[in-house]
Amino acid sequence: MNPAIAFSHWGRVGALALSALLFVGSQAQAQTDPLPSWNDGPAKQAIVAFVKDTTDQASPKFVPPAERIATFDQDGTLWVSHPMYTQVMYVLESVPALVKAKPELAKVAPFSTVLEILKGDRAAIAKLTMPDLEKLVAATSTGMSVETFQAEVKKWIAEARDSRWKKPYTELTYLPMQEVLKYLRANGYQTYIVTGGGQDFVRVYSEATYGIPPEQVVGTAGGTKYGYDKAGKPFLTKEPKLLLNDNNAGKPEGIHLMIGRRPHAAFGNSTGDRQMLEYTKAGDGARLSMLVLHDDAKREYAYGPAAGLPDTKIGTFTQALYDEAKKDGWVVISMKNDWKRIFAFE
Amino acid sequence: MNPAIAFSHWGRVGALALSALLFVGSQAQAQTDPLPSWNDGPAKQAIVAFVKDTTDQASPKFVPPAERIATFDQDGTLWVSHPMYTQVMYVLESVPALVKAKPELAKVAPFSTVLEILKGDRAAIAKLTMPDLEKLVAATSTGMSVETFQAEVKKWIAEARDSRWKKPYTELTYLPMQEVLKYLRANGYQTYIVTGGGQDFVRVYSEATYGIPPEQVVGTAGGTKYGYDKAGKPFLTKEPKLLLNDNNAGKPEGIHLMIGRRPHAAFGNSTGDRQMLEYTKAGDGARLSMLVLHDDAKREYAYGPAAGLPDTKIGTFTQALYDEAKKDGWVVISMKNDWKRIFAFE
Repeated sequence: MNPAIAFSHWGRVGALALSALLFVGSQAQAQTDPLPSWNDGPAKQAIVAFVKDTTDQASPKFVPPAERIATFDQDGTLWVSHPMYTQVMYVLESVPALVKAKPELAKVAPFSTVLEILKGDRAAIAKLTMPDLEKLVAATSTGMSVETFQAEVKKWIAEARDSRWKKPYTELTYLPMQEVLKYLRANGYQTYIVTGGGQDFVRVYSEATYGIPPEQVVGTAGGTKYGYDKAGKPFLTKEPKLLLNDNNAGKPEGIHLMIGRRPHAAFGNSTGDRQMLEYTKAGDGARLSMLVLHDDAKREYAYGPAAGLPDTKIGTFTQALYDEAKKDGWVVISMKNDWKRIFAFE
Repeated sequence: MNPAIAFSHWGRVGALALSALLFVGSQAQAQTDPLPSWNDGPAKQAIVAFVKDTTDQASPKFVPPAERIATFDQDGTLWVSHPMYTQVMYVLESVPALVKAKPELAKVAPFSTVLEILKGDRAAIAKLTMPDLEKLVAATSTGMSVETFQAEVKKWIAEARDSRWKKPYTELTYLPMQEVLKYLRANGYQTYIVTGGGQDFVRVYSEATYGIPPEQVVGTAGGTKYGYDKAGKPFLTKEPKLLLNDNNAGKPEGIHLMIGRRPHAAFGNSTGDRQMLEYTKAGDGARLSMLVLHDDAKREYAYGPAAGLPDTKIGTFTQALYDEAKKDGWVVISMKNDWKRIFAFE
């Protein structure tokens, strides 16, 4: 059959049936809750209202698809960051292999301290200073090709287990936030991770874990150096040179550097996200700034010190940040009250 | 009419007509030349073969859609860069406004030199040293908010005219390369600009000019500084601090920083693109590295010094680069022979 003839003959009928199909489709979509792990409340309502307003062409708050940018902190916002940031665990657990290759390090601090910690005294992590950590990051995460680093992180991410749930870290992502990522993407938003963690580290698992491709991960970034191997093949070596400290003011600065547009929505959970949320909210039109408050000691962790919760050095959410959120119209998400379900494995 | 009933009744017929429509559509597409401004020859054939190979699931060279990254140098590759880079013209033509605001600069070099150049002695641009240019860039492109800079560039780009064709610079893009951008995007490729020019400068017009959004522009980048105005509203100030010199080895380093994936195709025209093309070609599977050779003095410009063409300091294409291209299987595009038409306005 000549397809052109088939088309002219059946065209109108086909168009009718197709529009009916699309109509059925949109009806079905409208009836499905895009955020089933959220309890009804101001947080869920704020997200749904933001998406409806910014995607409705008749709304004064409509945002053209090209400008739909949403940014997410990772640690404590998309996945668990207590008792310690996952990447710090990677750095610590990479030390034994390092010591095996260079046995002389076994007796040198901070490597010797890490070996003690790994023998069982996990609480001793708190004794490591920032310069200690920087030295450990440089030793475990620079001086190799970007491909070698990627392969090592990929292997660790597949094998490592957290201390409480005994699960791969990539299973400790928050189901309600996974739903927000998907809901925003289904409505034309580009979802970016904007993390204080290492950009090269997060990029290894971001696509499989969050559906976020490497090019949409902004993080703390070191320099690389272009060179050639003995066969003349070019490669990039990771250098211990800080290019972007993607925390605090570094977050909006990193967003400008890597994305070049102000987000319409931003999600965080700690003082390190303050400037990103301020910068987002300061834009014209509809802007959504949200903070996850960890107030659920039973199902996850409880820390602040905002709202009278216990103080912490990991993902600190101060009362000043809480007050700024209330004053400037950001929305605070209560893990305990707003999240029906926290993990997919529950 | 109940749409569900309509669907069940007309479903089979609708599906038939729809598949006929799709068949007609793909027939029509196959018959349309995606690169009409290219003459048939090895360059055009290399591009078409690359796209066919990497998008055919049955081909051993198939590239999954998520990994389809193509990078393009801008100056001399996507638009005219002679007799002088467009951004340098922006910097020079911004000096009078600067002098008006700070009259004391009128007698201070290099500002005084620029005023002389703008009075008519355009050739005197060559007298400006690199430190002169750096000083001029700092004075005209930093110390203001990112929004102020964007507004100033936007205004200039709309009003400025080049010296030869008397056209807006954004009309001096190469039609054959615009076709390559569209052809790659139609086949699932993300197209990035990777330019030695200023990232913030190019981002202002990249979407309207090339269909490339700001977040897909990698360029030489300075730092920004987060702060607050008197009303407490946050903003970013452009700082005279170089974060990424996106030229030579800085191109693959910038690609890793900003994209995090190795391109499958890369296009350049000068020694500043060498490392990007090497890095692209060194990847596994199908990789396309191409160089535009400006050998058409009549329709555009002729410079090398490769292939016996006149030497130049703007977009130098050395014989060594030409030899490396031939040796490593890169494809050299002859403007004269491969491009049927150069500009859309012709």
